[in-house]
Amino acid sequence: MEFEMKHIDPATLQKQVTVHAPGTVANLVCGFDVLGMCLNAPYDIMEVRLLDEKKITIISKDGYQLPTDPAQNTAGAPLIEMLEEIDAIIGFEITIEKLIKPGSGIGSSAASAAGAVVAANHLLGNIFTNEDLVRFAMFGEKVATGVKHADNIAPCIYGGVTLIRSIFPLDIIALPAPDFFVTVVHPQIEVRTSDARQILRKEVLLKDAIKQWGNIAGLVAGLLKKDAALVGRSLEDVIIEPVRSILIPGFDEVKKGCKEAGALGGGISGSGPSIFMLSTNEATAKEVETVMKNVYEKIGISYHTYVTTINAAGVQVIAASC
Amino acid sequence: MEFEMKHIDPATLQKQVTVHAPGTVANLVCGFDVLGMCLNAPYDIMEVRLLDEKKITIISKDGYQLPTDPAQNTAGAPLIEMLEEIDAIIGFEITIEKLIKPGSGIGSSAASAAGAVVAANHLLGNIFTNEDLVRFAMFGEKVATGVKHADNIAPCIYGGVTLIRSIFPLDIIALPAPDFFVTVVHPQIEVRTSDARQILRKEVLLKDAIKQWGNIAGLVAGLLKKDAALVGRSLEDVIIEPVRSILIPGFDEVKKGCKEAGALGGGISGSGPSIFMLSTNEATAKEVETVMKNVYEKIGISYHTYVTTINAAGVQVIAASC
Repeated sequence: MEFEMKHIDPATLQKQVTVHAPGTVANLVCGFDVLGMCLNAPYDIMEVRLLDEKKITIISKDGYQLPTDPAQNTAGAPLIEMLEEIDAIIGFEITIEKLIKPGSGIGSSAASAAGAVVAANHLLGNIFTNEDLVRFAMFGEKVATGVKHADNIAPCIYGGVTLIRSIFPLDIIALPAPDFFVTVVHPQIEVRTSDARQILRKEVLLKDAIKQWGNIAGLVAGLLKKDAALVGRSLEDVIIEPVRSILIPGFDEVKKGCKEAGALGGGISGSGPSIFMLSTNEATAKEVETVMKNVYEKIGISYHTYVTTINAAGVQVIAASC
Repeated sequence: MEFEMKHIDPATLQKQVTVHAPGTVANLVCGFDVLGMCLNAPYDIMEVRLLDEKKITIISKDGYQLPTDPAQNTAGAPLIEMLEEIDAIIGFEITIEKLIKPGSGIGSSAASAAGAVVAANHLLGNIFTNEDLVRFAMFGEKVATGVKHADNIAPCIYGGVTLIRSIFPLDIIALPAPDFFVTVVHPQIEVRTSDARQILRKEVLLKDAIKQWGNIAGLVAGLLKKDAALVGRSLEDVIIEPVRSILIPGFDEVKKGCKEAGALGGGISGSGPSIFMLSTNEATAKEVETVMKNVYEKIGISYHTYVTTINAAGVQVIAASC
């Protein structure tokens, strides 16, 4: 596909912007590879500064050993692509304070990619559409996981819940952000996305696939009809979870305990190891957090938990200056 | 599961009712086994008369050689089940004028089953819920096809578009009836539901299943957001249609021609041989009909066509008397 070059006058642009780039939950249990949801916490803090040369610089303010070569960095690669479509001698310096731990399964790489493109687009006067931004940001996911996928990128940029009906051509459908509470536990074990993908079978039973598409249809209907009970009944995954949950110690106990504590339902966040649960109120979301803590205290695995809500806005501009 | 017996006083009941039991389109392209849609035409005309003995009688007013033994009849079997849950000495005489040709793929057997239970329930003062009625009517589908399925029954009883998220336990979600026009062509060839089912592979590629659940999610979102273009883009079936369409001469030509004529999209109705297409206006729906006619004139297969709309009400009571 050919894209039109954007003409801009660098003299008119703002010079610096700070954004919050939030975590996201991909798959949403029954929507493997097509659904994602944006969280209000945790989030990375990113500053992007306009340069007067065609160059990308990455500065890391956190302790993570991520590549600073822009072509190998999940924030840098998308901006290299964006610059290809801009007819002006400009560049970007990106300072990243990563608060979403890499490998947690709540969209750490997507936050860097989405934060970078939203921030840069803000400096450029929002000349690109959200769909353009997703297209650029997917280059960051390719750097991180080897695959262009959008189920974290899209909700991070659009906010709320997004359906990626198709990647080629890109077809993103924004769904409403229900006012649920989200509890996340990140057990501090490593599950590599590539391993989590390899463990899956290439073929699935038709009868299981039918159950799965009944559930995703129910989930989308529940979100649009604001029917929390239907959302809860539809949060069932008969294909991916039975295989991937084996990689996450304590998964079954967490899930059972959280549902007994009143959670609507939940499951693996992305490819794990984080587990998320939805609740209709904060008190339940906190009881769910206690269940999660107790399981990992008992097993003896370090963990982080978050009690948060669904982020309707996606990446947010916090400050900008000339 | 145990169901409570219903107590009624036969003396207080109406004695006779006439209903229209409409055709339905199961699967809706990407919703194999879980979605269905109710049509305004064609429909069967059914009269149900209350009897004062525990007995079901079937009278056929059409030329079809369907079984008149109630246990073997798609209208009779559901009422046998219904009577099991009624604590009174009553029965029903059912007169059926079938206008939906058996084997057409637009829910002929479901119309008989759904029409019978809605009519009988009307005489009983609507003591059963729609979900109860689906439960009874599925015994008719079992007689007709050997399998209890609800993707024609549910839309015939509820009207509009229905999602059957689960059969055991039954979980039916009513979706809105968009104001689309529906064009149906029934090429007069025989495709037996059991053959159409046997031809399917028991395993499917995960990557195809992902496309399919992206599409059903898009279709449900499109129906609820009243986004006709999204409905059109989502009417894609990468799993069932490529296999089953082989049984329907002219299918590819009909589909291509109808989309060129402006149809949103469509595909096989149920297990075929009927093909349906959705359009946003009547003029397009009629052009689509011309395309269908031309294809079957050229091939030399007899056919019926219908240009109709989506039926929001399902089975309708036309007349009742004491």
